[in-house]
Amino acid sequence: VRPTVSTAGERELIERITRRLGRALPPFVRLGIGDDAAVIRPERGAEDVLTTDSLIEGVHFRREWTSAAAIGHKALAVNLSDIAAMGATPRACLLSLAAPSDFPLADFDELIDGFASLATAAACPLIGGNLTRSPGPLVVDVTAVGTVRPRRLLRRRGAAPGHRLYVTGEVGSAAAGLEILRAGKSRADLTGPEAQCVARHDTPVPRLRFAAIVAKTAAASACIDLSDGLADAARRLAEAAEAGVTLAASALPLNPAARSCFEQQGLEPAMAAILGGEDYELAFAVAPRQERRFRAAARRCSDLAVTHVGTFVTERGTWLDIGSRHVDVPEPAFSHFRA
Amino acid sequence: VRPTVSTAGERELIERITRRLGRALPPFVRLGIGDDAAVIRPERGAEDVLTTDSLIEGVHFRREWTSAAAIGHKALAVNLSDIAAMGATPRACLLSLAAPSDFPLADFDELIDGFASLATAAACPLIGGNLTRSPGPLVVDVTAVGTVRPRRLLRRRGAAPGHRLYVTGEVGSAAAGLEILRAGKSRADLTGPEAQCVARHDTPVPRLRFAAIVAKTAAASACIDLSDGLADAARRLAEAAEAGVTLAASALPLNPAARSCFEQQGLEPAMAAILGGEDYELAFAVAPRQERRFRAAARRCSDLAVTHVGTFVTERGTWLDIGSRHVDVPEPAFSHFRA
Repeated sequence: VRPTVSTAGERELIERITRRLGRALPPFVRLGIGDDAAVIRPERGAEDVLTTDSLIEGVHFRREWTSAAAIGHKALAVNLSDIAAMGATPRACLLSLAAPSDFPLADFDELIDGFASLATAAACPLIGGNLTRSPGPLVVDVTAVGTVRPRRLLRRRGAAPGHRLYVTGEVGSAAAGLEILRAGKSRADLTGPEAQCVARHDTPVPRLRFAAIVAKTAAASACIDLSDGLADAARRLAEAAEAGVTLAASALPLNPAARSCFEQQGLEPAMAAILGGEDYELAFAVAPRQERRFRAAARRCSDLAVTHVGTFVTERGTWLDIGSRHVDVPEPAFSHFRA
Repeated sequence: VRPTVSTAGERELIERITRRLGRALPPFVRLGIGDDAAVIRPERGAEDVLTTDSLIEGVHFRREWTSAAAIGHKALAVNLSDIAAMGATPRACLLSLAAPSDFPLADFDELIDGFASLATAAACPLIGGNLTRSPGPLVVDVTAVGTVRPRRLLRRRGAAPGHRLYVTGEVGSAAAGLEILRAGKSRADLTGPEAQCVARHDTPVPRLRFAAIVAKTAAASACIDLSDGLADAARRLAEAAEAGVTLAASALPLNPAARSCFEQQGLEPAMAAILGGEDYELAFAVAPRQERRFRAAARRCSDLAVTHVGTFVTERGTWLDIGSRHVDVPEPAFSHFRA
């Protein structure tokens, strides 16, 4: 009989978590796991940034397609991406986990390992949370707390006509990765660009360092993360600015495997890429006077592609220029509230 | 056709939430709902207190038995109870809601109303969160942020042999309320003590004011909330103190309806009361030198019963004195990880 979370019980699970975290907590954490709540000392002269996001089995992942370690990683990553989008630095996180009674203990450990490994890499220790049984799906709800100096805060609002739109990393790779998995391909058989797309879907990397440099050098007028795709992100930045935005298909950083994946589905690759969700990259609006600082920030993160993909315009709307065509970008097809 | 959350879609749901909150945010909230994360200014000279707790359909509530308003209220209340248990004052909260596609829009509104009404009463504005579809149960995950001056922090650790154990409100009423509902009684038919027990189960009241006074006057050596019952709370305070604790059955504040409910089940009422979960009252350890201050705090909250129910002892263990019997209290029967 494989041991499950219900054979272990709540206390043992908490002990397993604390054993897996191991590391000493930073001095600003006054009280971590083990009391009714956690306590941290705020950074002097800075503000607290708070976000929560959840991954739900059957909506955001399937256990057949995604390893427990990737689920743990991603649950934290999507929150850290929100912290990054504010120009903030993560400080601590909370994990609220609801697991089916038959969730194998080995998967529980693996999930915590995936979570803990990103928490360590991002210097964002787990300081508290909550474990409960789920009568249905595995639910991983994470809250992340960050800190930002008031002047460095990056908001969604701040773009204006004439500002340029930049994006980090690749666009549409996570969506392509999901399609590759849906097509039944095994991770073990994947190589090169296909494997990269699947990795973008499994284990997105929050762009914390680049965002912090941009925030510190006041090199952008607005920022948002790409949880629902570049089209949605660009639209939201434009709406907050009471402006419009035009994206250039030819400029989009498309992974070759993503391009051929979308083409095989009979989709226009650029359009599919900007409508694809879960990239967890960042989109920035950059004013002309910020261009030099923004490019300097990009040079400091030489391992990260930062691409000029569009421009904010006066007329309200969201467009994609494909060759000589100026195409209206439809509202996102995907909604968490449509089955 | 009754409108559901999925006919409304994510944006409209967020608008419905913000309309229901209505009130202006306090000045320390720099950024509320609508960006990638919320931003608050920490209180000067104080520390941040962070907690997260979830209510899951089929585990913590059933929609047949509990109104959507009560679910919304309770999801916040259980978190505020944790904030209170630290001697902290709530500042803001986040709501992560996963709802089945067929969750009626009217219930959604009612849930938010129940949540918002307690948020307003407790001066703990909703500043952010996350909405998603659930393929199974309704999941309401809340994170609450509080603030506390370092010297006022109440921890689980701090009791010692000779300290007294006090509890707020009634013990076992929430468990009895659940039994009354399980027995198929309708809320409309209930009066007096039975109705009180059901109300304790439906809409627990976090003991924020009393805890804040105790914390401010340094009138307790330790504190914990009663999410898993008084026996579990007392045991945890004792374990943190490397001590034991003895409870007196004759001193327990039992609601008469709870007593007769437990008797009808063939249970020893005092034992059933201390093993019953979800009271969300607070248990305090009080040192002899703190007695006067603690009693003064209780007098200031004249609408709240505060009862001396036990004493910490040197020998490790948890006991209940029933008449002349000195009974070992078993480990809690209920675990969130047992079906």
